[in-house]
Amino acid sequence: MTAEQMLVKTALNTWKITNAKADKLFSALTDADLQAEIAPGKNRLIYLWGHLIAVHDRMLPLLGLGERRHPELDTPFLLEAENRALPSPSAADLKKWWDEVNGALLTAFEHLTPEEWLEPHTAVSAEDFEKNPLRNRFSVLLSRATHVDYHIGQAALVNRRN
Amino acid sequence: MTAEQMLVKTALNTWKITNAKADKLFSALTDADLQAEIAPGKNRLIYLWGHLIAVHDRMLPLLGLGERRHPELDTPFLLEAENRALPSPSAADLKKWWDEVNGALLTAFEHLTPEEWLEPHTAVSAEDFEKNPLRNRFSVLLSRATHVDYHIGQAALVNRRN
Repeated sequence: MTAEQMLVKTALNTWKITNAKADKLFSALTDADLQAEIAPGKNRLIYLWGHLIAVHDRMLPLLGLGERRHPELDTPFLLEAENRALPSPSAADLKKWWDEVNGALLTAFEHLTPEEWLEPHTAVSAEDFEKNPLRNRFSVLLSRATHVDYHIGQAALVNRRN
Repeated sequence: MTAEQMLVKTALNTWKITNAKADKLFSALTDADLQAEIAPGKNRLIYLWGHLIAVHDRMLPLLGLGERRHPELDTPFLLEAENRALPSPSAADLKKWWDEVNGALLTAFEHLTPEEWLEPHTAVSAEDFEKNPLRNRFSVLLSRATHVDYHIGQAALVNRRN
């Protein structure tokens, strides 16, 4: 394995570990658990989970890896602040979507070469990429990995039943 | 620039961006602000900041990049749960230590080659590294970047004065 392949493999491992932590945390929750707020007056756990799914779903077109699976999650979980008047998806549905989206990403990730990781993502123009070649697929992978941990840190504040 | 150099440069950029976010958040806080809890009964902001400094300080020996600058932060901010009976360092001291530790890391990071990023960190044995070559310096960099965002997510819950 070359150094560039090993660097990518290490980064994919960080992606997997971080998402496995989120999976362990959210997948253990019941519909009732998901209604808990992370802090008084702050987002509920269900919003964080739906938000992570929506953000990861958007990575498919952002990285040029395929069509979105669940664009319907944008309005309730990404583009607008949490609206508790909306009906909540069930824990089972969220788990299904989470696995579907993360599975599609991981399958696509495993086929990218190091050089392809360094190509521009689809939201950057050729001109802007010329100026800043750090706006590549790899940067999206890493920033989305830290983003998962951002919300795990919040979700971890909820005292759950053991 | 080779692909492997570009992958490292992209990862270092993620490290810098994440730490710049933390810097912007914490450096703006007064001594009084730092006493705020992230949620009722949870850690105070001062603990999170001291904790990040201690964790980053430990990266110096963990990555074989030098001696620790502030081992005295371990007991109050890392090894034990928050103890509010202890005297608090000032915001000015925390900012000084944060800049010192992150500066030392960044200077050292900029000198590592891609191959050196793939070398084992100092907490893994030769035998274990043989079994799992992902236990390299690069994995520590990435997992510590996500760790910063974990605590930024928590700190962001505090309603600060604008």
